[in-house]
Amino acid sequence: MKHFSITELVEQIRSKQSFLCIGLDTDLDKIPKHLLAEKDPIFEFNKAIIDATHHLVVAYKPNTAFYEAMGTKGWVVLEKTIDYINRAYPDIFTIADAKRGDIGNTSAMYAKAFFDDLQFDSVTVAPYMGKDSVEPFLRYPNKVTILLALTSNQGAFDFQTQPVANQALYKKVLETSQKWEGSQQLMYVVGATKAQYLKEIRQIVPDNFLLIPGIGAQGGSLTEVCQWGLTQEVGLLVNASRSVLYASSELDFAQKATNEALQIQQQMKEILIQHHLV
Amino acid sequence: MKHFSITELVEQIRSKQSFLCIGLDTDLDKIPKHLLAEKDPIFEFNKAIIDATHHLVVAYKPNTAFYEAMGTKGWVVLEKTIDYINRAYPDIFTIADAKRGDIGNTSAMYAKAFFDDLQFDSVTVAPYMGKDSVEPFLRYPNKVTILLALTSNQGAFDFQTQPVANQALYKKVLETSQKWEGSQQLMYVVGATKAQYLKEIRQIVPDNFLLIPGIGAQGGSLTEVCQWGLTQEVGLLVNASRSVLYASSELDFAQKATNEALQIQQQMKEILIQHHLV
Repeated sequence: MKHFSITELVEQIRSKQSFLCIGLDTDLDKIPKHLLAEKDPIFEFNKAIIDATHHLVVAYKPNTAFYEAMGTKGWVVLEKTIDYINRAYPDIFTIADAKRGDIGNTSAMYAKAFFDDLQFDSVTVAPYMGKDSVEPFLRYPNKVTILLALTSNQGAFDFQTQPVANQALYKKVLETSQKWEGSQQLMYVVGATKAQYLKEIRQIVPDNFLLIPGIGAQGGSLTEVCQWGLTQEVGLLVNASRSVLYASSELDFAQKATNEALQIQQQMKEILIQHHLV
Repeated sequence: MKHFSITELVEQIRSKQSFLCIGLDTDLDKIPKHLLAEKDPIFEFNKAIIDATHHLVVAYKPNTAFYEAMGTKGWVVLEKTIDYINRAYPDIFTIADAKRGDIGNTSAMYAKAFFDDLQFDSVTVAPYMGKDSVEPFLRYPNKVTILLALTSNQGAFDFQTQPVANQALYKKVLETSQKWEGSQQLMYVVGATKAQYLKEIRQIVPDNFLLIPGIGAQGGSLTEVCQWGLTQEVGLLVNASRSVLYASSELDFAQKATNEALQIQQQMKEILIQHHLV
């Protein structure tokens, strides 16, 4: 099994001067039309994006929904994509954005699916069902479990920010999960659209990495996120999906994806230098 | 697309005198050894269980974790299983126990996967990400969305029963979701191990169907569940998985599954008669 350590992730961030994650949310309706002539358009698209950006990013994050929406074919493409990353760029951190979670024996099946079979380094997990729904993931010492805390969407205000015994639910999730065995292998999802919450989040989880979706298409700001979210070990993975994947719908889509990723990486580099982190 | 109405489900319950759902949580390590000689042991097992119980149940509920843990092969078996049910027993209500939920455009992909492609009648959804994570499912007028409320596991006490503005989180989930467009197409998951909560749950959702896992292996009681959970339209689907699927690990597994399902159905029939519902 592929082993992964957070120390190696931090080293990679420092050497690439990037904490960019690209979300491989690949949609057949949005990829360049000329790829539709290929035998496996989605995989060819993913491969091209990966080859065009691997030097600028430290993580890839396919969202399972986009693959499941293609049925069995989609699951095959997901498998091919993660295999390709693991073979061609084994240092890159991989995230199955699956938002799973079930009773203990069932969560163990999900952990097997994403960690043992697909060989992802990490998986996103929903906290609603509590400790025994997350523990089966935490039992893998060389894998990372990324718990939803405060998500980037409007619906986050329905429950996550509601006060639970004088404390927002997402803070209760952060605090409670810190007491679980294996919590040093936890990361948390915090939406970039909620950057103003990061100061208080860092009081509860000063060290854990945060996975930050929501810059670009969803409107979050990288500077604001970094102002409150950075730690001495960087502690952030910032995700971009649509803005990179669909930077162009023409023959030059991979080059345009490189340009877009490069632009974000350059901002990240400046921020890392400013904060004396490289 | 297969159409489904809750009225038809109620009719089926009355005619079969059963509100039993069987969870097709099929595990290669647990099925009878003689099936391993078959080309597709999991599908052959599912087919045998379905053929042996279809007259005693009103719903089947494969949990996606068990299929994903088998990789692409597993997704193929899930597809074959739901196709088989839809062709052989089209009246039976089907539930993808997937516990999905993501930001709007991504949840729409999950809805497509389970409703359009796999042709399930319903899917279970986690509420943590709020309204816009559930809406894409509710937009299908002839499909049912089954929202996690109070689950059967110990971890339910970590967040679901915590007070949110003087009200347990699961109650807030019930109340809030009742205001969402399409809420008449909502069912809720409530664990049988939490039967004592059903009285208060029925004050918030007097009419919606509840999907009740946790009798059998998890220890919940059918009588207690019915005491507080039944409505004038029955309003309950009670799930059993392991106790039926693995009633025998020998050649007689299908016959033993029939016996086990029949025993539960007979209890249900008595309860329905007692409550003047048939």
